[in-house]
Amino acid sequence: MNFRTEAHRLVDWIADYLESIESRRILPDVKPGDISRQLPAHAPEEGEPFERIFADFEQVILPGLVHWQHPNWFAYFASNNSPPSLLGEMLSSGLAVHAMSWVTSPAATELEQTTMEWMRRLLGVPEHLKGVIQDTASTATLSAVIAGRDAAWRRSGRDADIVFYASNEAHSSVLKAARLAGFRPDQLRSVPTDETLAMRADALANMMASDVAAGRVPAVVVVTVGSTSSAAIDPVRATGEIARRHGAFFHVDAAWAGSAAIVPEFRAAFDGLELADSVVMNPHKWLGVNFDCSLLFIRDLPAWLETFSLTPEYLKSAHDADVVNYRDWGIPLGRRFRALKLWFVLRSEGAESLRARIREHVRLGELFGSWVNGDAAFERMAPVSFALVCFRHRPAGMAEAALDDHNRRLLDRINASGKVHLIGTVLRGRFVIRMAIGQRNTAERNVREAWDVIQQCVRA
Amino acid sequence: MNFRTEAHRLVDWIADYLESIESRRILPDVKPGDISRQLPAHAPEEGEPFERIFADFEQVILPGLVHWQHPNWFAYFASNNSPPSLLGEMLSSGLAVHAMSWVTSPAATELEQTTMEWMRRLLGVPEHLKGVIQDTASTATLSAVIAGRDAAWRRSGRDADIVFYASNEAHSSVLKAARLAGFRPDQLRSVPTDETLAMRADALANMMASDVAAGRVPAVVVVTVGSTSSAAIDPVRATGEIARRHGAFFHVDAAWAGSAAIVPEFRAAFDGLELADSVVMNPHKWLGVNFDCSLLFIRDLPAWLETFSLTPEYLKSAHDADVVNYRDWGIPLGRRFRALKLWFVLRSEGAESLRARIREHVRLGELFGSWVNGDAAFERMAPVSFALVCFRHRPAGMAEAALDDHNRRLLDRINASGKVHLIGTVLRGRFVIRMAIGQRNTAERNVREAWDVIQQCVRA
Repeated sequence: MNFRTEAHRLVDWIADYLESIESRRILPDVKPGDISRQLPAHAPEEGEPFERIFADFEQVILPGLVHWQHPNWFAYFASNNSPPSLLGEMLSSGLAVHAMSWVTSPAATELEQTTMEWMRRLLGVPEHLKGVIQDTASTATLSAVIAGRDAAWRRSGRDADIVFYASNEAHSSVLKAARLAGFRPDQLRSVPTDETLAMRADALANMMASDVAAGRVPAVVVVTVGSTSSAAIDPVRATGEIARRHGAFFHVDAAWAGSAAIVPEFRAAFDGLELADSVVMNPHKWLGVNFDCSLLFIRDLPAWLETFSLTPEYLKSAHDADVVNYRDWGIPLGRRFRALKLWFVLRSEGAESLRARIREHVRLGELFGSWVNGDAAFERMAPVSFALVCFRHRPAGMAEAALDDHNRRLLDRINASGKVHLIGTVLRGRFVIRMAIGQRNTAERNVREAWDVIQQCVRA
Repeated sequence: MNFRTEAHRLVDWIADYLESIESRRILPDVKPGDISRQLPAHAPEEGEPFERIFADFEQVILPGLVHWQHPNWFAYFASNNSPPSLLGEMLSSGLAVHAMSWVTSPAATELEQTTMEWMRRLLGVPEHLKGVIQDTASTATLSAVIAGRDAAWRRSGRDADIVFYASNEAHSSVLKAARLAGFRPDQLRSVPTDETLAMRADALANMMASDVAAGRVPAVVVVTVGSTSSAAIDPVRATGEIARRHGAFFHVDAAWAGSAAIVPEFRAAFDGLELADSVVMNPHKWLGVNFDCSLLFIRDLPAWLETFSLTPEYLKSAHDADVVNYRDWGIPLGRRFRALKLWFVLRSEGAESLRARIREHVRLGELFGSWVNGDAAFERMAPVSFALVCFRHRPAGMAEAALDDHNRRLLDRINASGKVHLIGTVLRGRFVIRMAIGQRNTAERNVREAWDVIQQCVRA
């Protein structure tokens, strides 16, 4: 294969794809097995021309993809790419260096240190937290939970009855992390939430006090700024003070909403970050850095390294005492050169344009929320928070018991339109539809189109 | 930024870089801080033209990188890219879809299922193991150890004194996985090795028997085919039978050497894989698939899902009963579309050309080993295994006690040449130099150049 020729062709294809993405049906119309049954059971023995492979990509694979970069994307949270990020990914793959140790590519480590300091300052994360790029918030949170577990074990002994705390609105990866770290079901506390679905600090305080009274050891508290279901905001300062009082490891999951901390007027939701033992936020969600790029900020690095550092002979280098070896800051040894795409995005976009995009998305969320508020047939199911609106359709006279099914069917019709993509969740036992704004190119006309589609589907 | 214009320029730069990589000094001549002190302390407020950013890449970053794709790469294990893999990475970034659930891009999941079946057949992994792509062997092994820990807990209760077994030659990520999974130091067994540095099955059997006699529960056994230090080959069948007899989870780490299983005449080293509960191998090492692409094959999927599956409302879909949701097969929720690059490589290269490359590298390893054997001033320190040769220089009359320092200094001179890159390790307490052949473009002349550089450095 001639890489140069094929890569030039592919660049044009990708540029065309991204320019014309709005003309595509956002969700594919396929059933399980539709794609795999078109693929042979064995790898070919002989190499094939790329033209033929790419033709199969266009005919077999592409019709089975969901178009995550469509500006009518309102599902999950958006996971953005962007031109500078794509260039960063291309270059990083071309160089194919490892950022596991300083010595395996000094510039990869030092650019990561620099860009993490840039991000720390942009986000207002206190200086005593040091940053590292990980793949996902799931992995970063698992690392934090394991580090907190180990710290509790070091403090109280391996036989201590350690306890984990998070609200019932925490992301599924948080509870999964606690299970993977080995907490028993009886060591997991689900802290109640208030009317905004935020963790109740008083409930956390009571739970921890009675655990301590019973001889148990509060080990880890995970709070969320911007929950997945409703963008609820746990009170960082109040819960952080309680966690610290009990010596528990305090992890802040700001995977999605963390990007909003670059905007001064949204900073209040993050008040208390100086109490955190670790904070995670994902530029791959709202800042246009290709997935995967999850930033983890760590307070007590010596304690962290006690959990994660283990250096065999073949990884030792003469510089180990003077440098950062990021392999010791997390689970995987091998590490891609992810700082490059982050650097390209920050320099190419500049902080002000990133802030402007987030301000605009938050404005669009409030606008959409005002439409819901202004329509008697709809009900807003949680406060509009950042750029997320939870709502349901409530036709006059329909009984509460019928509303879940009604809204599930409505959501199916909305998605079947192929024009927009939203998903649902359950809040306080009731099914709601989530309107999550955050795709890089989403503008007011896209949000209006979503509202139009919803209205049409209500009437259908 | 005009993505199309800049991406075309970057394609030419990458193509030129890869074509001319042999003209570069393989290791940079930089000291800690040399790169970061050239970078500003803050992200820019305003966006900058890409031309200026890329100029900084060339002037500041590039001189601080290690050229991992240089065909004189003999350090660690190679971590290859290749033309079709680069195209796969470009396209995957451009589409930026998530392969976390079937419904988030059905074709991404089904192409992963298909390519994992292709790989399973190519590698001779038994049909009852099902495959998933993970990021690294470190993560895959941690997943396996956690799954094994949970299985032991389910079988014997949470208070059981569970035990973990691996040889002292296992990769550092194996011991790290056991610690992260929560095994106590007294629950970790280091199984002795034989004269080839392979795990002694009889020693494993004895250790397990005395643990059982003492009321402890053998939980996890990790064996390695192709250890990092010396490519030692643990006896899979013999150890697997012992592990199964005790009901322990049996994980096979073939991260590097696993690629050689696609060659029929190298398959014998993997005999007994049908006993494995999980097997990991990395196409990102020896098969030219860009890092990260680590393949994990799993035996007892229902048990595995008991550990890793946790489905919140916002991830439920109507198809969940009929499809594979790979988010439930590992730690991270978010998952890149990695199957694309694997598919491109397998189809573009074809199985026969991948086999030919591995055969050639193994031949070159044997050739290099024969040079070591034929030179009285050198000593081979382990059997030549796959394409790895461990050796040291032993000048006539030099005392054993002086050899470690002598060879460390020799290795420093070899690397300071800038022409080749090798690393050292310690075998049975003695420092040795590792010659690991595996870079995609490494040919006989590159191996000869390495031997010439070594000889020059001996004389220097």
